[in-house]
Amino acid sequence: MKAYAMTRIGHTGWVDKPRPTCGPLDAICRPIALAPCTSDVHTVWSGSIGERFDLVLGHEAVGEVVEVGALVRDFKPGDRVLVPAVTPDWSSREAQAGFAMHSGGLLGGWKFSNSKDGVFAELFHVNDADGNLALLPAGMDLAAACMLSDMVSTGLYGVELAGVEFGDTVAVVGIGPVGLMSVAGAAIHGASEIYAVGSRPNCVALAREYGATQIIDYHVGDIAVQILALSGGVDRVIVAGGDAKTFVQAVQMVKPGGCIGNVNYLDEGDHVIFPRLEWGCGMGNKSVHGGLMPGGRLRMEKLASLVITGRLDPARLVTHRFTGIEGVEQAVMLMKDKPSDLIKPLVLLDDAAPAPVEV
Amino acid sequence: MKAYAMTRIGHTGWVDKPRPTCGPLDAICRPIALAPCTSDVHTVWSGSIGERFDLVLGHEAVGEVVEVGALVRDFKPGDRVLVPAVTPDWSSREAQAGFAMHSGGLLGGWKFSNSKDGVFAELFHVNDADGNLALLPAGMDLAAACMLSDMVSTGLYGVELAGVEFGDTVAVVGIGPVGLMSVAGAAIHGASEIYAVGSRPNCVALAREYGATQIIDYHVGDIAVQILALSGGVDRVIVAGGDAKTFVQAVQMVKPGGCIGNVNYLDEGDHVIFPRLEWGCGMGNKSVHGGLMPGGRLRMEKLASLVITGRLDPARLVTHRFTGIEGVEQAVMLMKDKPSDLIKPLVLLDDAAPAPVEV
Amino acid sequence: MKAYAMTRIGHTGWVDKPRPTCGPLDAICRPIALAPCTSDVHTVWSGSIGERFDLVLGHEAVGEVVEVGALVRDFKPGDRVLVPAVTPDWSSREAQAGFAMHSGGLLGGWKFSNSKDGVFAELFHVNDADGNLALLPAGMDLAAACMLSDMVSTGLYGVELAGVEFGDTVAVVGIGPVGLMSVAGAAIHGASEIYAVGSRPNCVALAREYGATQIIDYHVGDIAVQILALSGGVDRVIVAGGDAKTFVQAVQMVKPGGCIGNVNYLDEGDHVIFPRLEWGCGMGNKSVHGGLMPGGRLRMEKLASLVITGRLDPARLVTHRFTGIEGVEQAVMLMKDKPSDLIKPLVLLDDAAPAPVEV
Amino acid sequence: MKAYAMTRIGHTGWVDKPRPTCGPLDAICRPIALAPCTSDVHTVWSGSIGERFDLVLGHEAVGEVVEVGALVRDFKPGDRVLVPAVTPDWSSREAQAGFAMHSGGLLGGWKFSNSKDGVFAELFHVNDADGNLALLPAGMDLAAACMLSDMVSTGLYGVELAGVEFGDTVAVVGIGPVGLMSVAGAAIHGASEIYAVGSRPNCVALAREYGATQIIDYHVGDIAVQILALSGGVDRVIVAGGDAKTFVQAVQMVKPGGCIGNVNYLDEGDHVIFPRLEWGCGMGNKSVHGGLMPGGRLRMEKLASLVITGRLDPARLVTHRFTGIEGVEQAVMLMKDKPSDLIKPLVLLDDAAPAPVEV
Repeated sequence: MKAYAMTRIGHTGWVDKPRPTCGPLDAICRPIALAPCTSDVHTVWSGSIGERFDLVLGHEAVGEVVEVGALVRDFKPGDRVLVPAVTPDWSSREAQAGFAMHSGGLLGGWKFSNSKDGVFAELFHVNDADGNLALLPAGMDLAAACMLSDMVSTGLYGVELAGVEFGDTVAVVGIGPVGLMSVAGAAIHGASEIYAVGSRPNCVALAREYGATQIIDYHVGDIAVQILALSGGVDRVIVAGGDAKTFVQAVQMVKPGGCIGNVNYLDEGDHVIFPRLEWGCGMGNKSVHGGLMPGGRLRMEKLASLVITGRLDPARLVTHRFTGIEGVEQAVMLMKDKPSDLIKPLVLLDDAAPAPVEV
Repeated sequence: MKAYAMTRIGHTGWVDKPRPTCGPLDAICRPIALAPCTSDVHTVWSGSIGERFDLVLGHEAVGEVVEVGALVRDFKPGDRVLVPAVTPDWSSREAQAGFAMHSGGLLGGWKFSNSKDGVFAELFHVNDADGNLALLPAGMDLAAACMLSDMVSTGLYGVELAGVEFGDTVAVVGIGPVGLMSVAGAAIHGASEIYAVGSRPNCVALAREYGATQIIDYHVGDIAVQILALSGGVDRVIVAGGDAKTFVQAVQMVKPGGCIGNVNYLDEGDHVIFPRLEWGCGMGNKSVHGGLMPGGRLRMEKLASLVITGRLDPARLVTHRFTGIEGVEQAVMLMKDKPSDLIKPLVLLDDAAPAPVEV
Repeated sequence: MKAYAMTRIGHTGWVDKPRPTCGPLDAICRPIALAPCTSDVHTVWSGSIGERFDLVLGHEAVGEVVEVGALVRDFKPGDRVLVPAVTPDWSSREAQAGFAMHSGGLLGGWKFSNSKDGVFAELFHVNDADGNLALLPAGMDLAAACMLSDMVSTGLYGVELAGVEFGDTVAVVGIGPVGLMSVAGAAIHGASEIYAVGSRPNCVALAREYGATQIIDYHVGDIAVQILALSGGVDRVIVAGGDAKTFVQAVQMVKPGGCIGNVNYLDEGDHVIFPRLEWGCGMGNKSVHGGLMPGGRLRMEKLASLVITGRLDPARLVTHRFTGIEGVEQAVMLMKDKPSDLIKPLVLLDDAAPAPVEV
Repeated sequence: MKAYAMTRIGHTGWVDKPRPTCGPLDAICRPIALAPCTSDVHTVWSGSIGERFDLVLGHEAVGEVVEVGALVRDFKPGDRVLVPAVTPDWSSREAQAGFAMHSGGLLGGWKFSNSKDGVFAELFHVNDADGNLALLPAGMDLAAACMLSDMVSTGLYGVELAGVEFGDTVAVVGIGPVGLMSVAGAAIHGASEIYAVGSRPNCVALAREYGATQIIDYHVGDIAVQILALSGGVDRVIVAGGDAKTFVQAVQMVKPGGCIGNVNYLDEGDHVIFPRLEWGCGMGNKSVHGGLMPGGRLRMEKLASLVITGRLDPARLVTHRFTGIEGVEQAVMLMKDKPSDLIKPLVLLDDAAPAPVEV
C-alpha cells in the first residue's frame, strides 16, 4: 500500500506499507480528501514528537469506509465519513473524566501520525469506528469537510478554552488556518471586538471576513502594547500561534478575571514563561487553559452542523488544491515552504477509483 | 411632573408626580427614548404584580442624566445613558453570590414599575448610577439602544440559561421581541439548527433573518411532536413565550443532558407542570433554568458592544415609532392590542427640549 | 443458573436462567455481596418500569470475575470487583456529551434489572468490563463496597446536582439510605447547616452522625415552613425522597440563585409540579437538576477512594445481613416491608464456593 | 491614634496617625483581635508591594464598630464584626463580572496595608460596611474569627481554584497556615488522598489532623518525583507555598485534565515558568488558576458558618497569643523570625477598654 511517510527526522518519502488490520471495533477507510497540517511539518523537520521511521504522515481526512469490524454497528463499507484528527479510547478513565483527548496518557487521543500511521496512504485505520467517525453530510463540500478534522475543531476549541461569552473582547494571536477558525468561532460565540494578530495579507483579509474588527501587526510594535492601547485589556486571549514571548504578551493584555486559551503546539524551548507582575504575583485571576482539541464522533457531527446551517464556512481556508494521492507530496512541501499566498492546501482523491480492498 | 401610570389594576392614565429625589449614589434622568413591554401590559391588565395605585409604568429607556448624587463618580449631567430594566443593589449578599437580579429578595433587582416608579415620566430615578448606568456609545441608534434595556438582555439571557454551545440544536418557543433576540443570540453563541416556534408573518420573517433555520407553527400541530420529528430531540430549549403547556412540551423535546432556559414571565396559574415520564422520572438530566435577566452597567456595556461591532441588530425589532412623551400612551395601547404588524413600538422624545431640571 | 426474578408485576420468585454470554468487551461475574434497592421494590410492586417477565432483579453488587471477553485488557478471572448500578456504553454520543447515564437514550445506561437481567443470580453479565468495573481495593469492607454501586453514587450525585459549595446551607429531603449518603456527601463537599428531613429514629440518628445539624420532622408541620423559619431559605435542596408535594416545598425553601438536585425516582403521577409564584414566575433563578447517577469505572474508583481514606463510611447504612444467595429473597422482602429498624440489608455470598463456571 | 506601620522598606515602628474619616458608606472599627500575615513581612522586608512610608500594617482583624456612615443600614456602633482582608467596591465592573477582588484594577480589592492603612491601629476604616463586614456570630472564638479574614478565605480559595471534587487526589504544596487551611478545605470539599508538602513537625502534625493522608518532605527528594511515585499523578494541585520551581513541579505532578490552583503570593523573579513538555506542549489540559481570595460580607458569613457548624476549626492554627495593641509588634517580629514552633500568632485587645472614639 502506497503511503507518504516521515522516513526519519528531516526526511519524507513514499513508502510501501502493509494494509492496516481491522480490529472488531475498527474501520479501514480510503481517503477522499486530505490536508497536511503545520504539525506534519513540525513532526518531520523539527522532530517535535521525536524520531520515527517510516511513520505515515497526516491526520486531516475525509474518507470512505472500506471495511468495518464485527462489533461496529453504525458504519458499513461505502459510507463516506468525517474523520477527526483525535480518535480517543472512549472507555478510558480519561474519557470518563471528560478529557478523552488524553485517553491512555498525555495527548494519547492523538494517534494518527503520532502513535500509529497517519492518513496519507491508500488506506488508513480508525480505532473505535462508532465512537470516532461521523457520516459526511449529504452535499457537504469536501474542502469544508476536510477542515473539520483539525482546523475547525482546534480553532473553535481555542474559543471554548478561552471561555468567550456575550460581549467579550477577544485577542486571537496568530491567524494561520487555526487562528482564523478561532476568529470565526469567537464571532459566533458572542465576541464583540476581535483583535486578530497577524500580517500576511491573505490571512488579514480572511480574518476580517471571519469577523475580526481590528488587525494587529506585530511588525508595528509589541502586540500587547498595541492591544492595551486600543482596548484597555481584553477579556479573552486565544493563542493560536506565536513564539516564546507570546504568553508574556497574553498575560499582559488580558484583564484580571480573564482567560487565556492556548491551542498552539509549543514545539521548542524547555519552559513556557509568564510575567510575574502582570500575572498579579500569582493572584491576578488570569486563568490559563491550554488543551488538545477533543475528538470523536459527536464533536464532528456538531461541527459539521455549523457548516450545514451556514454559521461557519471553513472552505475559505483552502487556497491550493491538488488531485490524486500524489498531490500529498506537493501539499506537504507547500506547507513546509509557506509561500505568501498559502493558507491551507487540499488534496482531492479520485473518488471513482475503488480502493485496493482485499477483505 | 407628567407621568404615564397604572392608576389601578385595569386602568392607566397620565398623572402628576413629584420630581424624584436623588440620593448620594443615584442619578435623575430624562428619557430620550422609551419602549413599552408586554410586562407593562400584564402589570396593568392582568394584575400580574398585584394592585398598585398611580405606579409610573415603563422599564425600557435611553436617558440623559440631569442630576447625580454626591458619591457618583462616573456620570454627570448631560451624559446620555443606557438604562437597564434591572438595577440591582450591588453590595447585597445576592449580588455577591452572582444573582444581583434578586438583590434584597426574589426579583428584587427589578425596581422600575415594580417597587418604584418606572421610566414613563419626564424624569426618572436610577439607583446606584455608577453601578447601573452605561454611557450611550457615540453614534448608536436610539432604537437599538432602547432595545438593550430589556429585549436584548432578556433574549440573550435565555441563551445563557439554556447553555447554548457550538453545534447545539436549539428550540426557541415564542418569537415576540424577546424570543427574536433569543434566536439572534443563539445564532451568535454557537447554535446550528434553530427551531423557532411562532406564526405571525412579520415575526417569522425576522426570525429567519436573525438565524432561525426552521419555523414551527403551533397551528399545524403539537410543537414537541413537530420538533421531535425534525430533530430527534434538541440540545437546548429557550422558553420566551407560550402558555401552561409549554414546559411539558419543552421537557418532551429536549434530549437527556439538555437544558431548558426560561425567560418568559409566567403570569397565571398556581403551578408550572413537567411531564414525569419524559423528565426521566426525575432522573433525565433535563435541567431547568428560569431566571430574570442580570442588570447593571457591565452587562449594558457588553450588550452594547455587540451592537457596535455589528454582531446584533436589535433595531429591526422596532415596527412602530412615536414622538414625544405623549406617544407613550399610544405605544402602550399598541402593545395591549397587538395588531398583526406589531413587534415593538418605540417612543422618541424631543431631544432638544431641556428637561425640567430644578437642581 | 439460579436467579431471583420479577416473574411479572407484583410477583417475584426463583427462576432458572441460562448462563449469560460474554461478548468480546464484557465480563461475567459471580456476586460476593448483593443488596436490594427500593427501586427493585418499585419495579416489582409498583410496576414502575412496566411489565417484565422473569427479569432478574438487582443492581447493587460486589463480584468476582469468572470470565472476560477477548478485548478486555484490565480484568481477568479471579479479580474481585466493584460493580456500578449504571454501566454505560462509553463510545455513545451521550457519553461523549458527558451524559453516559443516558447512553442509547433516556436512562439507557441503567441496564441491570431494566434492559437486561440484574445481579441477583449465580452469575451476571457486565457490558464493557474495562469501562465499567473497578478493582475492589484490598481490605475494603464488603458492606461499604456494595453500598458504592448505587447508594453512595446516587446520594453523592444529589450533592453534585445541587451544587453544594463552601458554607452553603442544604436541605436533604428524605433520609433513607440515599438521602443519608446525600447528608454525608454534603458534609464533605462544603455544606455548613444541613437540614435533614425525616423521622424514623434510626435514620435520624445516622443522619446526625453523617453531619446533619438539624432534623426536620414532617409530622410536626410543613417542611418548607419549618426550614424557612430556621434558615430564611437554603442555598441547596437535595430531593432524595418525598412525594408529589416535594418539589413545591423544595422551590419554596430554596433561595433565589439556589439549586434543587433531585435523585429520587418519581414513580407515580403524570406530572411534577412547581409553585409558580415562589419559582419567581419563572424568573427566580431557582435551578432544577434531576439526574441519574453517572456510572462506570472511574466513578467507582473515585468513590472507593473516599472510603479508603476514611472520608465516608457507607457501611453504617447496613442494618441487616444475610448469607448465601437464598438470602436475597429475605432481603428483598425486608425492603418491601420496611420494618422500622431497617435502613439497608446486605447479602454476603459464600466466598469460598467456586461459581458454576463452564467456560 | 497609635498604629504599627511600615515606616519604609525594611523598617517598622509605632507611629501616630490621625483618626480615619468615615464616608457615608463606611465604618470605623477598633480591633478586638489581630493577626500578622506573612505578607506583612514581605511588604516590609522584601518590599514586595514597593516603597511606602508610614503605611499602617495588617489586614487580619476582628473588630468592634465605633462609627458608621449615614448610608450604612446593617451595622451600628457596638456591633462586633468579622473583617475580610479583601474589601471590594461592589458596584465596580470587576465585581459585576464576578471578580470583585480586582475591583478598580489588578488586586484592587486588597486595600488594607496596600492602598490604604491597615488594621494594626487603635482604629481602622472599612469601605462599604454593608458589603464588607459581617456580624461576629455569638460565641465564636476570637482566634477562629480572626483566622477567617485571610487564612481560611485564602486557603479555601485554593481548593476552589483547583476545583477539588469527590474522590480527587490533591497535592497541597506548602503547609504554613494558608496551606493548612487548603488541606482542611480539600478534606471538606471531596478530596480523597491529600499529599501535603512540608516538613516542620508542628505543621506536619496539624496537616494530618486536618486531613492530609500523606506527608511529602522536600528534604527527601524532588516533590514531584515523590508524589508521582505514590499517586501516578494527582487530580489537583494547590500551591500555597514554595519557590520559583514550584510551578514546574506542579505541572509535572498533575494529570492531564487536572488543575493547579495558586494562592501563593509570588514575590520575586521576573517570570513564572512552566515545563513545556509536561504541560503537553501547551495542549495538556493542565489548567492554571491563580487568584486573590474573594472578599466581602457574604464570604465571611459563609466561612463563619463552617466554623459554627464544626466543619472547620481554624483556631488550631494559633500557636502564640499576645495581649494589647503593643502585642502587635511582638507578633510581627515572630512572623519575621519564624521560630520552629510558630504557625500563627494572635493578638487579643482589651475588650473592655473603650476605643478612643471622638465622633
